[in-house]
Amino acid sequence: MRLAEIEADLAKLPLVSRKRVLYGEVDKMNFAYGSHYLTWFEQGRNEYLRLCGLPYTAVEARGLALPVVEAHVWYVAPVHYDDLLDIRCAITACSKTSATFLFSIEKDGERVAAGSTRHACLDAARKPVHVPDWLQQQALARYDISLDPA
Amino acid sequence: MRLAEIEADLAKLPLVSRKRVLYGEVDKMNFAYGSHYLTWFEQGRNEYLRLCGLPYTAVEARGLALPVVEAHVWYVAPVHYDDLLDIRCAITACSKTSATFLFSIEKDGERVAAGSTRHACLDAARKPVHVPDWLQQQALARYDISLDPA
Amino acid sequence: MRLAEIEADLAKLPLVSRKRVLYGEVDKMNFAYGSHYLTWFEQGRNEYLRLCGLPYTAVEARGLALPVVEAHVWYVAPVHYDDLLDIRCAITACSKTSATFLFSIEKDGERVAAGSTRHACLDAARKPVHVPDWLQQQALARYDISLDPA
Amino acid sequence: MRLAEIEADLAKLPLVSRKRVLYGEVDKMNFAYGSHYLTWFEQGRNEYLRLCGLPYTAVEARGLALPVVEAHVWYVAPVHYDDLLDIRCAITACSKTSATFLFSIEKDGERVAAGSTRHACLDAARKPVHVPDWLQQQALARYDISLDPA
Repeated sequence: MRLAEIEADLAKLPLVSRKRVLYGEVDKMNFAYGSHYLTWFEQGRNEYLRLCGLPYTAVEARGLALPVVEAHVWYVAPVHYDDLLDIRCAITACSKTSATFLFSIEKDGERVAAGSTRHACLDAARKPVHVPDWLQQQALARYDISLDPA
Repeated sequence: MRLAEIEADLAKLPLVSRKRVLYGEVDKMNFAYGSHYLTWFEQGRNEYLRLCGLPYTAVEARGLALPVVEAHVWYVAPVHYDDLLDIRCAITACSKTSATFLFSIEKDGERVAAGSTRHACLDAARKPVHVPDWLQQQALARYDISLDPA
Repeated sequence: MRLAEIEADLAKLPLVSRKRVLYGEVDKMNFAYGSHYLTWFEQGRNEYLRLCGLPYTAVEARGLALPVVEAHVWYVAPVHYDDLLDIRCAITACSKTSATFLFSIEKDGERVAAGSTRHACLDAARKPVHVPDWLQQQALARYDISLDPA
Repeated sequence: MRLAEIEADLAKLPLVSRKRVLYGEVDKMNFAYGSHYLTWFEQGRNEYLRLCGLPYTAVEARGLALPVVEAHVWYVAPVHYDDLLDIRCAITACSKTSATFLFSIEKDGERVAAGSTRHACLDAARKPVHVPDWLQQQALARYDISLDPA
C-alpha cells in the first residue's frame, strides 16, 4: 500500500480526538518518536468507536476482542513538543476476518502522519471469528460523525 | 524518606540486570525521561525475583499479585541516549501488608538514580492479603545473588 | 513525606487537564501501569504552566530548563482501561534551587493517585541556577485557575 | 508490501539483540501492546549498527540523522509477559534518499512479528541529503554479523 493510493480515503476521515504532544514523546531532535503514533492511533480508534455508539468496552462486553495484526505508519512531517494534533480516523474496510482503520494526524490543518491498522476478531476463548455484522453496520465508514471543532 | 537515609542499603544491592538507553527514551535535552526509570525498576524487580528462584510468573501462578502502591525516584545524574546502565535491586523490607524493593541505577560505576517501590499483596480475587512467608524467605534481602559481570 | 501530610495541599489543587486511559496503558490485571502516572503528571505540569500564562515552551525560550530531580507517586486506587481521569496540579513550593509540583489524579471525584515532582533549574549551558523570581511570581500556588468543567 | 514477499529476506536476518517482555508492555489480554514493537525495532537497529562497527552515536557524530519516514509491522503470533524474544535486523535496501531496515522478532525459534522501517537522511541543518556511501558500504546487507547465541 502506498500513501498516494489512500489519499482519497484519508481526506474523508472525521475528526475524532485531539492530542497535545508531551515532553516524554519527543526525542533529542525534538521529533515525536515513532512508536507513539501507534498509541495516538489507538486513541483515535477508541474515540471513533465511541462516536459510533460502540465504545470498545462494549465490544469487549460482547465477548469480542480486536487485536491488531498489521500496522502501517507514514511519518509525513516532523511533530514537535507541545504541538496540538488533530486525530482523524474511521473503519474503511471490513473483510470476513479483519477490520481496517485508517488514520490521519494533522497539525494546523496540514497532515503530519497517516497510517492504518488491521484487526482480527477473537471470541472470548481467543479463537478467531468473523467480524460480526453489528460491528460493520454500526462502525464501517462512518464519515458523518465528528468531534466538535475546538 | 531522604536519599541519605537509604545510602547504606543502596550500597549493598546486587547487580540484577542491564539496560541500554534507547533513542525513544531520551527527551529533547538528551536526558532520559523520568517515567522510564519506573519501567527500568520493573526490569530490576523481574530479574531480582528470577535470580531468587521465584520469577514473578511463579508468584502469579500461586494466585498472587504484587501491585505497586507507592514509588519514589531520585534522579541523581543525567542519563543519555545509548548509555549502558547497571540495575541493582533487592527486597529490603517486608511488613505484613507490603514488600519494598530498593533500586540503584549506575553508569560506569557511578549512581545516576535510586528509588523504591512498595507493593501490596492481592489474592486471586484481588483482595488484599498478608505477604506470604515463602516470599519473604525466598526473596527478602538476598544480597548474595548477582548477574555475571559483563 | 507521607500522603497524610500533604492531604490539605492536595485538596486545593486546581483541575488542569483530563486523560482517557488507553489500552496500552493498562497491564494484564487491567490496572494502569505505574510509569504512566509520571507521564500524566507531566501532562498536568504542562497544562498548569499554560493556565498560569507561562507555557513550558516559554520557559525554554528564556533559556531555562526544569529537569526532574525527584518524583513520588502514591497509587491510591486502581485505574482501568477507558477511565476518564481528572488531573489536578500546582506548584506548591519553591526554594532557591528547586520547584515542587503536587498532583492529584481523580476518577468520578475520588482520588486514585497523588504525587509530587521536584525540579531543578538549569540555564542554557545546563548549569544549575536559582529558580527565577518571575517563575515564582507567575506560577507559585495559583489555585485560582482551572480548566472548564466538562 | 506483503509479508510473503519479504519472507526470503527475513530468513537471512542476523540475530542482533534480545528482549525480555515487561509487565508494562502487555495489555489486559496479556498480549504485548502494538506500539512497543517499534521500540524493539529501534533496539534492533541500534545493535545492528553497533555490530556493523557503526553505532548510531557515530552516525550522529558525523552530523547525520536517520529519522523514520515509514514503518510497517506484522503481528504474527501473540507475545506475552516475560517472553524472551530474539530480535533479528539488517539494512536490506538503500536508495539515494532512504535506507530500509527489516526486522524479525522470534520466540523459541518461531517468528512472532516482522516489520520494516524506512529512514531518510538529514544533515546537521536537518536538510535531506543522500544516504552516504560509507553507510551503505559499512552497513548494507551485513548478514555475517551476529550476537553470540545465549
